[in-house]
Amino acid sequence: MATTGSPFLAQPYQGIATFGRQPHTRVLAGVDVTILGVPYDSSTSYRSGARFGPRAIREQSLLLWGYNNAQQVSPFEVLNVVDYGDVDVIPVDVSATHRAIELTASTILHAGSKLITLGGDHSISLPLLRAHHKKHGPLAVVHFDAHPDTWDEEYPTYKYSHGTPFRRAIEEQLIDTEAYLQIGIRGPTSGPQDYIDARQLGGRLMTIDEANDLGVPAILTEVRQRVGSRPLYVTLDIDAVDPAFAPGTGTPEVGGFTSHQMLRLLRGLSGLNLVGADVVEVAPPYDPQHITAILAANLAFELLSLMARK
Amino acid sequence: MATTGSPFLAQPYQGIATFGRQPHTRVLAGVDVTILGVPYDSSTSYRSGARFGPRAIREQSLLLWGYNNAQQVSPFEVLNVVDYGDVDVIPVDVSATHRAIELTASTILHAGSKLITLGGDHSISLPLLRAHHKKHGPLAVVHFDAHPDTWDEEYPTYKYSHGTPFRRAIEEQLIDTEAYLQIGIRGPTSGPQDYIDARQLGGRLMTIDEANDLGVPAILTEVRQRVGSRPLYVTLDIDAVDPAFAPGTGTPEVGGFTSHQMLRLLRGLSGLNLVGADVVEVAPPYDPQHITAILAANLAFELLSLMARK
Amino acid sequence: MATTGSPFLAQPYQGIATFGRQPHTRVLAGVDVTILGVPYDSSTSYRSGARFGPRAIREQSLLLWGYNNAQQVSPFEVLNVVDYGDVDVIPVDVSATHRAIELTASTILHAGSKLITLGGDHSISLPLLRAHHKKHGPLAVVHFDAHPDTWDEEYPTYKYSHGTPFRRAIEEQLIDTEAYLQIGIRGPTSGPQDYIDARQLGGRLMTIDEANDLGVPAILTEVRQRVGSRPLYVTLDIDAVDPAFAPGTGTPEVGGFTSHQMLRLLRGLSGLNLVGADVVEVAPPYDPQHITAILAANLAFELLSLMARK
Amino acid sequence: MATTGSPFLAQPYQGIATFGRQPHTRVLAGVDVTILGVPYDSSTSYRSGARFGPRAIREQSLLLWGYNNAQQVSPFEVLNVVDYGDVDVIPVDVSATHRAIELTASTILHAGSKLITLGGDHSISLPLLRAHHKKHGPLAVVHFDAHPDTWDEEYPTYKYSHGTPFRRAIEEQLIDTEAYLQIGIRGPTSGPQDYIDARQLGGRLMTIDEANDLGVPAILTEVRQRVGSRPLYVTLDIDAVDPAFAPGTGTPEVGGFTSHQMLRLLRGLSGLNLVGADVVEVAPPYDPQHITAILAANLAFELLSLMARK
Amino acid sequence: MATTGSPFLAQPYQGIATFGRQPHTRVLAGVDVTILGVPYDSSTSYRSGARFGPRAIREQSLLLWGYNNAQQVSPFEVLNVVDYGDVDVIPVDVSATHRAIELTASTILHAGSKLITLGGDHSISLPLLRAHHKKHGPLAVVHFDAHPDTWDEEYPTYKYSHGTPFRRAIEEQLIDTEAYLQIGIRGPTSGPQDYIDARQLGGRLMTIDEANDLGVPAILTEVRQRVGSRPLYVTLDIDAVDPAFAPGTGTPEVGGFTSHQMLRLLRGLSGLNLVGADVVEVAPPYDPQHITAILAANLAFELLSLMARK
Amino acid sequence: MATTGSPFLAQPYQGIATFGRQPHTRVLAGVDVTILGVPYDSSTSYRSGARFGPRAIREQSLLLWGYNNAQQVSPFEVLNVVDYGDVDVIPVDVSATHRAIELTASTILHAGSKLITLGGDHSISLPLLRAHHKKHGPLAVVHFDAHPDTWDEEYPTYKYSHGTPFRRAIEEQLIDTEAYLQIGIRGPTSGPQDYIDARQLGGRLMTIDEANDLGVPAILTEVRQRVGSRPLYVTLDIDAVDPAFAPGTGTPEVGGFTSHQMLRLLRGLSGLNLVGADVVEVAPPYDPQHITAILAANLAFELLSLMARK
Repeated sequence: MATTGSPFLAQPYQGIATFGRQPHTRVLAGVDVTILGVPYDSSTSYRSGARFGPRAIREQSLLLWGYNNAQQVSPFEVLNVVDYGDVDVIPVDVSATHRAIELTASTILHAGSKLITLGGDHSISLPLLRAHHKKHGPLAVVHFDAHPDTWDEEYPTYKYSHGTPFRRAIEEQLIDTEAYLQIGIRGPTSGPQDYIDARQLGGRLMTIDEANDLGVPAILTEVRQRVGSRPLYVTLDIDAVDPAFAPGTGTPEVGGFTSHQMLRLLRGLSGLNLVGADVVEVAPPYDPQHITAILAANLAFELLSLMARK
Repeated sequence: MATTGSPFLAQPYQGIATFGRQPHTRVLAGVDVTILGVPYDSSTSYRSGARFGPRAIREQSLLLWGYNNAQQVSPFEVLNVVDYGDVDVIPVDVSATHRAIELTASTILHAGSKLITLGGDHSISLPLLRAHHKKHGPLAVVHFDAHPDTWDEEYPTYKYSHGTPFRRAIEEQLIDTEAYLQIGIRGPTSGPQDYIDARQLGGRLMTIDEANDLGVPAILTEVRQRVGSRPLYVTLDIDAVDPAFAPGTGTPEVGGFTSHQMLRLLRGLSGLNLVGADVVEVAPPYDPQHITAILAANLAFELLSLMARK
Repeated sequence: MATTGSPFLAQPYQGIATFGRQPHTRVLAGVDVTILGVPYDSSTSYRSGARFGPRAIREQSLLLWGYNNAQQVSPFEVLNVVDYGDVDVIPVDVSATHRAIELTASTILHAGSKLITLGGDHSISLPLLRAHHKKHGPLAVVHFDAHPDTWDEEYPTYKYSHGTPFRRAIEEQLIDTEAYLQIGIRGPTSGPQDYIDARQLGGRLMTIDEANDLGVPAILTEVRQRVGSRPLYVTLDIDAVDPAFAPGTGTPEVGGFTSHQMLRLLRGLSGLNLVGADVVEVAPPYDPQHITAILAANLAFELLSLMARK
Repeated sequence: MATTGSPFLAQPYQGIATFGRQPHTRVLAGVDVTILGVPYDSSTSYRSGARFGPRAIREQSLLLWGYNNAQQVSPFEVLNVVDYGDVDVIPVDVSATHRAIELTASTILHAGSKLITLGGDHSISLPLLRAHHKKHGPLAVVHFDAHPDTWDEEYPTYKYSHGTPFRRAIEEQLIDTEAYLQIGIRGPTSGPQDYIDARQLGGRLMTIDEANDLGVPAILTEVRQRVGSRPLYVTLDIDAVDPAFAPGTGTPEVGGFTSHQMLRLLRGLSGLNLVGADVVEVAPPYDPQHITAILAANLAFELLSLMARK
Repeated sequence: MATTGSPFLAQPYQGIATFGRQPHTRVLAGVDVTILGVPYDSSTSYRSGARFGPRAIREQSLLLWGYNNAQQVSPFEVLNVVDYGDVDVIPVDVSATHRAIELTASTILHAGSKLITLGGDHSISLPLLRAHHKKHGPLAVVHFDAHPDTWDEEYPTYKYSHGTPFRRAIEEQLIDTEAYLQIGIRGPTSGPQDYIDARQLGGRLMTIDEANDLGVPAILTEVRQRVGSRPLYVTLDIDAVDPAFAPGTGTPEVGGFTSHQMLRLLRGLSGLNLVGADVVEVAPPYDPQHITAILAANLAFELLSLMARK
Repeated sequence: MATTGSPFLAQPYQGIATFGRQPHTRVLAGVDVTILGVPYDSSTSYRSGARFGPRAIREQSLLLWGYNNAQQVSPFEVLNVVDYGDVDVIPVDVSATHRAIELTASTILHAGSKLITLGGDHSISLPLLRAHHKKHGPLAVVHFDAHPDTWDEEYPTYKYSHGTPFRRAIEEQLIDTEAYLQIGIRGPTSGPQDYIDARQLGGRLMTIDEANDLGVPAILTEVRQRVGSRPLYVTLDIDAVDPAFAPGTGTPEVGGFTSHQMLRLLRGLSGLNLVGADVVEVAPPYDPQHITAILAANLAFELLSLMARK
């Protein structure tokens, strides 16, 4: 039985699914961390379905009994956490959706709460970075992904889609590129220029081969050196993890991290100044055994635990 | 776009899933109808999984745009409806679970609200009938099912499981057997005695063959004659419907109703004194395309609409 | 609880899966009906997987509680039934497989038992007809199917595959074509000649449109007139039924029978001289909710019940 | 074996999947009918995935052996048919996508070919109607669907999405509303106004209840009376069919047509002046057994056969 | 082709599925090892379905060709192995089920056979330990799991469920806690007390992080030191393995062992005095590709091979 | 957006699926590498379905954006690549199918093109080796697999099936056994003789345990030493990879390579004289999330990239 007072007295299959059984409210007074969903998948380049990501992660979050043994913290006890529900997305208009995301995120941040966002496709990180930048100035960004997402245009003349957010964010000076790391990058690209372009933007592109050769501790050392005391935003595309561990995603890329590596990479961010985070690209139609959503819920819980330990 | 003021302004993939986007609360003052989940499946005789039924039906209920064209009513506008959440079931103890169900149901009924319950396996109808009987006295019961569920014991010496609730209910005089109809019965049984026994309990057992030969209008005529003005409880095992339309159930029985027949059967109960209802045996692990949960959500919506037209 | 002495005292999820929990034996003395599996699918023209048909049907047969209410008989009590297990098929050699089937079937028939065979693709009906012809002479055949299976060659120069068995059977004079009915035929063919050819072989090809226009009782009248007192073999390709009711098959053809129609068509064969039967083309990889295997198990149970009433 | 010269000599699991194994080309000289895919699903209001519809329908079209027995025609022999491939859609821009569709469709029609389009979500019918109107003037439209798709705005201020195309088409006078029928309409709506609005636009809204009460022949009589000799466009949302027969769609609505009814409704359009057609809203992520795509391929084949018989 | 005399001459898709094609019998004279199924899942705290575990493992065990190359032994030749079938569980009564398990296990052990049990949820290990303790006295236990399963109560006042068996076993002095190891523990718990409590019971709780840091050889060294020559019982909850390798389980916990690690951990128990074992929590409804059941069958085969080498 | 001129300007869900969007043609003048499908699965010993392997790999190959970052080459730019389509297999005749494969492969090789073949079951490698031997003489073969496939007979008296091709190839002196490596071998076999027999044929059988102990670089050193400058054929059974990463295969064997190991093993063959390759045993019915087909497409892309760097 869960400890008395735990939000997890109920069994995981019971009740209304908010993230971690936290209250579903838009009243933010005194809230430390807000969980927000963005059910938007119209800028996906392969398999759509990430619009159901927030709901699936919420449902599987009911397995998170409350205490993080690895980080030795009970984030739902230490922090006042709420589930804000979802942004009102407009699937036929990426710009309107981005405005709605930025507005909602800014409202939450302005109220004094931190924000962890559940996607949705990766295009949503751009308005999230805008909102965080407005509050914190240029951000250190640790970006776990199989793909750099720094194309200039994914479709000719279109600047905004899930393949371009981080180029836009750098152009808009939201990111402090000296403290920008892309970790887990791999797979075919449209040419050698993709990685060259990404690197010329100023960030540290670390391929999966580099990452595996370095090992988790050395990766973390480099991350901590680059990030320092800057305000840190973590953006985690679930496809950083291998499709064996996370099949439910839009553009699966073979040869990725194990779930154990991914957990340890997040836990190793302890002590950094984490100001915001997102977990994106969970596509439930391709996740019938729910293992991707369960992993995403755990990763969001690790991020929340990092915030709880600050 | 949904009519202004409709609970369905949000898209169905957005937000926290309560039934029909109604408020999740246990404050019952002024509530007309309460939706209650019972995530219990330990008395299932074949495929378990109905514990996830309430959550799946809630999720798919977000497709119910609000206005029932067939019944010409907007139940969420006419009625004050809330989603109470789920009963605290104990999967290892059927009796404790039944007590919890009866207690919760009685609390809701005592507060002046009607109740529509989402199962869970069919064993849960017994405590629901007890609670309704306490308020209304002997009940007319329209029972849609492939199986009579009137065995004396499903497991030797065990009186309570999903194959026995209606025998128990009759023994406890919860049901007025003159106004008890079992509709859609079919499939192999353990012997000829099963139907004979069911009929000797006093109800009207109508096999699927009889039902198809009669046709929906004649079935409804008979139902109305038997039920009259009595307080009516409707219990709907989703396996009354053919597995093509409702694969996600524990003991599928081939040769059942179409979804269209089932909808018309419920709509035809209009004008009767419907005091309570349940929709049970939806087993989401066997419903990957969600068509069973979508059907169940629509059937619950028809029942709610009947209550709205009273 | 099942009647004492019933083979179905155990719950359907318990124990070793033989057909209807009958003994798994090859000792045939005193046996009335033998269930035989043929896990062969190498002559399938589209989706393979029917090799798992016998196992899936056996597993779902544990839902058959024992008494057939429609036919009012308990076949497992009236008859001595055994499950022989499977033929030793050779997936790379259709002819060797056919010889093995014929040999096994002949052994069973010679021992005085009737035979119900679970496929496997439809090519297996040819050796089954050979074995039954050896015992009974020319056979009346009621053949439920979406496809006539009377091509001369499915692959150039190959006479034996799942599109040709009934032409071969007619050429080998195993079938009395005056008493040969193909029922439920539909879908595109390679040209108008396919149906013309099938009809020139002498049988009665009844399309699904004719069948639906006639209705079940009139179909049965015609069947009984043609079959008369001849020894009757029933061969049932599960794709006679619509893919909504039977998705788990190799060459699904839309617009077919409902499961209720199919059940009534079999039950209506009562009183005819049924000497053997097969149920084929159940492909479990395309049947994750098991509704096809459950239907096939029920259809085999109806055939067994017909034998029990003789 | 398929008739010599048939495109279907190969087995359905073999080779590159174009529609009906027709040549994949954009050279349109002498082409009678062009098959076009529109893999766009960003305006879907519930389950995304229809972007994979064209590919799935093409793959399952390899089961169409070539001769339509019901319509007694071999469309691939009578007509010169090509598979043009897909429109270059822009998932983040519905207007640009509509322009691309209209341009591609107009190019095809201008070359003298008829067009059958495979969706994609239902928003694509608007640019298709524009292209056909440009060639033929105001169109008779037979619209099979569960939903009227005549909302003014699905998202506030947005005029273009999959819930609005037919209101737009009527406003743009693409449709001759005296010859506009919506058939199979059902399910909850946002209010009574939805159907009233739809009817006030001038078309004939026929609910599934009306349709079932009339029966297929009477529906067809009404269709033929209204359409007369006008140029006819048929738009078929697969959700007109019940989810049992077509689970793989974005907004499943229970209580719909059977596949047999749907086939007969299309076949009954014989003799009308069919100038174009689309089959939309097939969502393969929700169609693991492929029965929806197989049905859609057959429905497209019926439409093509109608064109072949003219 | 399998070696002559091997039980695996038949292909894996053929025949009746007993474990390793061993005889299905309850006659135990001369039997070395008995395989027993316990299809009970009512005490599962999240996803039910483990009741189908024994059947699924049996089916996939037909892939075990007979010779264990890693352990260099043919257990089905060295040992006389039988498949006893399943315990008669009562899903509505955990205590009655436990009594039935203990009785059946004791009968088997008393007949002189060892026992390998296939679950079913983890609550079943308690009566299994009781039966083994009766024969062997206090047991060394190597317990592979993601969860300690040493809660006092999973539901208030309930002492028996799948979260409590090992606390009960220690209280009943069935386990020699000096030789009790829990290996692979991870994931959130209800508080820090969970691990503290588990450790205070006297066993060695080894988290996945410790296990990965130690590596397989060092883990095995510690196991061998603690176990020594004591009678050893191995209990293996399949969720010790990562959900990528074993998605089909009730409470998946990310970040676990790989299948290769798990195999090597079992093989490394060679030479210890293995007196009994179970493999539990395989939930087939969440294992559509069967990879969990295949893994479980291989793990049971490794355990059997250990018994064969003694 | 992909580099201008890239075949990958279209999104992966768009258009007709040929391998890497290369032209579908049988005109081979000037072609460097031909992609060929062999949709044959009749000699599979467990789960059939590999007949859909070529189509699934083609579909997922549309994710290969064109540039191989690990090998630093754009194979579709460096090489003239075509997709030949599929061999005309005869599912009921393994010998005729083998003749058709050999004939087609020889035609392609004779035209001066290299060949990468997509299976289909592993029996197809024998005729492929014959065709390559005809051109290149005895071949070095690097064979990744869980199983040695060097049985003499899988079914008594049958020399040709998916368990025997490499024994046949050695008997026919197609392989230079000094340069024949089997890598990743594991799992139960019919007896100790299986590995002994395989080794006596002269090749190097490296079990998964040896492989994991050596590590990728040491494996590659040994491969390069043995292969030297000989003409090299690579045959890759997808079951060399663990079922977590490749569930969609016929005879899954637990405890295999990760996808990252497999990628690095192929990349490490750089500089060897690669003359041909196949990727076999992808069974799409067991791959609903497509991760196996995505992996196979990437592995074929690595092989193609090796050819491009020569």
